[in-house]
Amino acid sequence: MNCEIIAIGSELLTPFRSDTNSLFLTERLNKLGVQVAFKTIVGDRQQDLVDQVRIALNRADIVITMGGLGPTVDDLTREAVAEALGFRLKRDQAIVGALYARFAARRIQMTDNNSRQADVIDGAIILENPNGTAPGQWLDIVYNTHRKLVLLLPGPPHELKSLFDAQCLPRLTETLPKRHIATRTLKATMIGESVADARIAPIYNQYKDVETTILAHMGDIQLNLICGKPLIELAQARVDELAGRIEDELGDLIYSSQGESLEQIVLYYLEMRGATLATAESCTGGMMAQRLTSISGSSRSYLGGAVVYSNELKTAFAGVPTETLALYGAVSREVATALAEGIRQRSNASIGVGITGIAGPNGGTEEKPVGLVYIAVADDQQTEVVEKRFGGDRERIRQWSTQQALDLVRRRLM
Amino acid sequence: MNCEIIAIGSELLTPFRSDTNSLFLTERLNKLGVQVAFKTIVGDRQQDLVDQVRIALNRADIVITMGGLGPTVDDLTREAVAEALGFRLKRDQAIVGALYARFAARRIQMTDNNSRQADVIDGAIILENPNGTAPGQWLDIVYNTHRKLVLLLPGPPHELKSLFDAQCLPRLTETLPKRHIATRTLKATMIGESVADARIAPIYNQYKDVETTILAHMGDIQLNLICGKPLIELAQARVDELAGRIEDELGDLIYSSQGESLEQIVLYYLEMRGATLATAESCTGGMMAQRLTSISGSSRSYLGGAVVYSNELKTAFAGVPTETLALYGAVSREVATALAEGIRQRSNASIGVGITGIAGPNGGTEEKPVGLVYIAVADDQQTEVVEKRFGGDRERIRQWSTQQALDLVRRRLM
Repeated sequence: MNCEIIAIGSELLTPFRSDTNSLFLTERLNKLGVQVAFKTIVGDRQQDLVDQVRIALNRADIVITMGGLGPTVDDLTREAVAEALGFRLKRDQAIVGALYARFAARRIQMTDNNSRQADVIDGAIILENPNGTAPGQWLDIVYNTHRKLVLLLPGPPHELKSLFDAQCLPRLTETLPKRHIATRTLKATMIGESVADARIAPIYNQYKDVETTILAHMGDIQLNLICGKPLIELAQARVDELAGRIEDELGDLIYSSQGESLEQIVLYYLEMRGATLATAESCTGGMMAQRLTSISGSSRSYLGGAVVYSNELKTAFAGVPTETLALYGAVSREVATALAEGIRQRSNASIGVGITGIAGPNGGTEEKPVGLVYIAVADDQQTEVVEKRFGGDRERIRQWSTQQALDLVRRRLM
Repeated sequence: MNCEIIAIGSELLTPFRSDTNSLFLTERLNKLGVQVAFKTIVGDRQQDLVDQVRIALNRADIVITMGGLGPTVDDLTREAVAEALGFRLKRDQAIVGALYARFAARRIQMTDNNSRQADVIDGAIILENPNGTAPGQWLDIVYNTHRKLVLLLPGPPHELKSLFDAQCLPRLTETLPKRHIATRTLKATMIGESVADARIAPIYNQYKDVETTILAHMGDIQLNLICGKPLIELAQARVDELAGRIEDELGDLIYSSQGESLEQIVLYYLEMRGATLATAESCTGGMMAQRLTSISGSSRSYLGGAVVYSNELKTAFAGVPTETLALYGAVSREVATALAEGIRQRSNASIGVGITGIAGPNGGTEEKPVGLVYIAVADDQQTEVVEKRFGGDRERIRQWSTQQALDLVRRRLM
């Protein structure tokens, strides 16, 4: 079974907005064994919409539209789908009544155009939308002798998601041929995408029944394994077997075998060991702190730290001796060490991290170029410092630096 | 003139990847007076591609494909476009030679499949790609009696962007009817999108020749004004006049009239006043520091600060008295004040900021619910504290809190 997703709205054809709803729908559909074969974005023009719905009906088993169900003149999806199918629209008085009640409850006068949201395509099942005024519609029809499902969904993400899960998932599960899908997500870090792929492709190529996707972003590699079988046990066994072989190959480059983020893993290890962490960041300017504290519950293991952009604050907050700064410069192995050890001591944390480097685009020299970063991790036994030369722009250098720092903490705790 | 952008690649039909190249292309095309009418994503299947290129040729003046130009069997764009047009492919020996030279320079053996990248559609101009192995192609053709431009571009963003700017922009400027486009971007903050729209819609609706787009993200409102006229002076005058009237209406809610970010504006004001800033963050966990230091040159005015997640660090790094913590709790007006004043004093900054709150999803009480945040700004004259109750999830509460804090600093410096 394949699907075409049509996102509707002229704002999605500007430089400022992109469709993200389709990623959510794709994830849900894949788990039901449905592949997304086409995604199309169309503006609020009726003829374009009618043509596109017909194109989609001719090439996909399931056609899902998103958006264009609101009350304004720009909202043309109902009319366009009805026209493409040659079906009529009828105003559903029960929906009109519910709309009036909804507005009355908020003591707002309902304008007439809202009634358009009660126009239902002949034969459609109405999909209630508790988070918005426009209901969705579900059509199970025969088009040119083929059975087709046509779903009209609202555009706002929170409306679409809850409506899809509550109303479409159960219907799709009932309607589609039974297929059981098992998935696993492995994550690795501090390895390039092509290097990772070269090492594991010979393995996953032996599992033609498992779909393997590799995604890389800022030093983070995500491997998604997905397999569909008539029995869930068979699918799970294949996915687990392949995951095990990939874990054997990549070893401790893999930090997560269940999809957790690196921040989550570091916090989990800290808690497991009863350890605490503090950070002193120069070039990453709080990004490591921000990443750790983005996780709820991080306060159990992450105490906090210092953002020490100026040399004075390196001394004041992390106790870096002024002589060390003068002798080696702010970007040096010695200052990274002093930052890690100083913040550890001043915060009474079990582990201290120090990061100093040149994030660019300015401030580099021949000896100390943009991208040079020193990262130190100190505990009560030892302080380890690594020197890295990251490529790319300021954002990338900062991201890779925090990724490396988190990975060093993970390895220290392993 | 209108355009269809076709993004090619099965990975773009997974839940994990979305097309972002098209936003870049749309921005460039709009400035040339070209509207994007359709965006389509197709997988690596030849017949789907051929069909889609034909659909696009029938409904758009300019058809741009992105991706599918590499050396592997999945890269089918050249073949598919040639088939859709009924044109032949010819291998260009000069490109083959350049590929061999490129591989030789890196001391890598070139595999045979790379030669496919030298296959050129009859009549196409070759678009050199200095950042990758696969060149683009430019076709200026007549299809069903209509003149059409067909552009084949590489998929990797850095290849596509530089190739488009270097090779396609000049050709498009020469080919397309002359039209001069003026743009302005205004930014406002701490106002809802619908409230902002309600206030300015009566103004921009009087300027039908200026396209006004409103985007809202995490407390940041961006207003894009764009106008095309035969003379650039006319276009600029209309855009500037509308921008001026919107600025009059929204007053100091507008923080930027040339598109700068709030971080940039705060740093600019700090530098202009010869002032320095330090931060002490609890619930935002370094996000404000990270936002400020994401700007190159921020070290001139931003000294750094403390991430004080634990109560101990609030005292150790920002000098918050333990009695204040005991008496009022960590999330209180008094602790925010002490954080701002303490960090200012310890860092010798002209301005200190303190943020404390409950980012959730856990940790809220009836008295102090999730989303309650206190933000204090201290200088040598006074300390101002605001209490906010932000809605949404952890990420949203943290984003809005830093947005509010940055805006308070901006207002203090105005």
